Amino acid sequence: MTHNTEKSPLSLLGLGAMGGALARAWLAAGHPLTVWNRTAGRAEALAREGARVAATAAEAVAASDLVVVCLLDHASVDDALAVADLSGKDLVDLTTGTPEEARTRARWAEERGARFLDGGVMAVPPMIGVPGSGAYVFYSGSPAVFEAHAGTLAAPAATVYTGEDPGLAALHDVALLSAMTGMFAGVAHAFALVREEIPPKDFADLVVSWLSAMTPYAYGIAEHLDSGDYTKNVTSNLAMMVRGNATLLRTAEEQKVSPELLTPFTTLMERRLADGHADEGTTGVIDLLRVP
Amino acid sequence: MTHNTEKSPLSLLGLGAMGGALARAWLAAGHPLTVWNRTAGRAEALAREGARVAATAAEAVAASDLVVVCLLDHASVDDALAVADLSGKDLVDLTTGTPEEARTRARWAEERGARFLDGGVMAVPPMIGVPGSGAYVFYSGSPAVFEAHAGTLAAPAATVYTGEDPGLAALHDVALLSAMTGMFAGVAHAFALVREEIPPKDFADLVVSWLSAMTPYAYGIAEHLDSGDYTKNVTSNLAMMVRGNATLLRTAEEQKVSPELLTPFTTLMERRLADGHADEGTTGVIDLLRVP
Repeated sequence: MTHNTEKSPLSLLGLGAMGGALARAWLAAGHPLTVWNRTAGRAEALAREGARVAATAAEAVAASDLVVVCLLDHASVDDALAVADLSGKDLVDLTTGTPEEARTRARWAEERGARFLDGGVMAVPPMIGVPGSGAYVFYSGSPAVFEAHAGTLAAPAATVYTGEDPGLAALHDVALLSAMTGMFAGVAHAFALVREEIPPKDFADLVVSWLSAMTPYAYGIAEHLDSGDYTKNVTSNLAMMVRGNATLLRTAEEQKVSPELLTPFTTLMERRLADGHADEGTTGVIDLLRVP
Repeated sequence: MTHNTEKSPLSLLGLGAMGGALARAWLAAGHPLTVWNRTAGRAEALAREGARVAATAAEAVAASDLVVVCLLDHASVDDALAVADLSGKDLVDLTTGTPEEARTRARWAEERGARFLDGGVMAVPPMIGVPGSGAYVFYSGSPAVFEAHAGTLAAPAATVYTGEDPGLAALHDVALLSAMTGMFAGVAHAFALVREEIPPKDFADLVVSWLSAMTPYAYGIAEHLDSGDYTKNVTSNLAMMVRGNATLLRTAEEQKVSPELLTPFTTLMERRLADGHADEGTTGVIDLLRVP
């Protein structure tokens, strides 16, 4: 087995769906890779593809200056790294978590003598290592770690550095996934409405182009939040939208579809309208989401 | 004042924001236009732009073979047309309503000797009459009416004929608006999460490209509904998504954002997962929305 000696070595802990895809992308790019997984089967498959398999997490950490973890959750990282010597290491955590978990991990790594970078992967595993797939990873934390390993980190997916606060990558990640979850909820409700009457494939074509055309709505929200004036350039005001919502809810009733995915937003729009903001767009709903 | 005599005349009842935009588009395209509005001020402004103003709705109906109504709601159409003679007319209803309201209007029109076409406008008023704006109108009902007035109907916006069932235009319209409402809810939640920490304009850029990239999710749903196999080509299964949702909800708590816009969908995903569908995508949620 030969390695391209120009590529930096790294260790990867965690070979779930995402970890496995990352491992294959690094191997394909010629990086010497040491892997570890809590259950051994997945590591053995990667050994056949050129990875060195560490017997323990501590051994995997010892093998490389750059250590990437992609485990189930924050607690799994605690477990895996409990007895590893992290001093002098660059630790990159791609485990899904909250901003506060990332900040906690950054302090934890610093106490152990490691530099820390958190990452949030914006892709599903099949997009990893595929040029042009649109996959990218948000990073936050040590800019030195991000710069030192820029080439290695860019092998599986494009990279976006979001700042020194280690929580920023997770915040970006979770916020985009939250927006997507809302979109998926709307799409589910829409298919429920039409499933008996419009061929799903035809409807999917319409949904994809309609939603894509409507995404610039986010720029209007940004302008409202920046200026504090929620009436600016509003083309469909809250009074009109609340009236429209009533039609959506009546249609759901006609089609025997539960409105539960739409009502929380329509209720907040109604509250904002009742508070006297008929000329605004929907931006005021964001204020109503703030928990005191 | 001269009219291009090659363009067909029509009457338009209702000069709200949408009606006014439609009127201007037809005038700009050279169609002789008779207008009526419940309150007279708006009609007078259009008279200066070349519209003939009818004193009553019945007079506006009498003035043209093609009668377009764009009023507040179904009841407003009843009121406006109560004493009009519709026999021999082609009635096109662009008033926002439910599929059942459109079917009711179609029967009502037929009883009065009119042919009927319902329409659902997929645009905000500033997009009307602007080539390339992406505005379009779903139509359903009499194919003869749609064909006879194809050119006139195409002046304010592109046209999409969805079928003879008069309810289909409203169903398409409401379903797409429902999907959009879900997307707007997700975007509102996302901005609430990040507003103190990420510049809104930067975040808007990310949201627009991320959501646009995720819209093809609808094709996966369509394939599941067509095949009945909700596990097909699933890249992020329900077990993984429910775990991810927990991170979204914990992050909302950290950021002091109410999770109320996300929880209905996450709850349905959890129900479907508990029913033993870990390997599916989210399509099963659509089944759970069916009201018995």
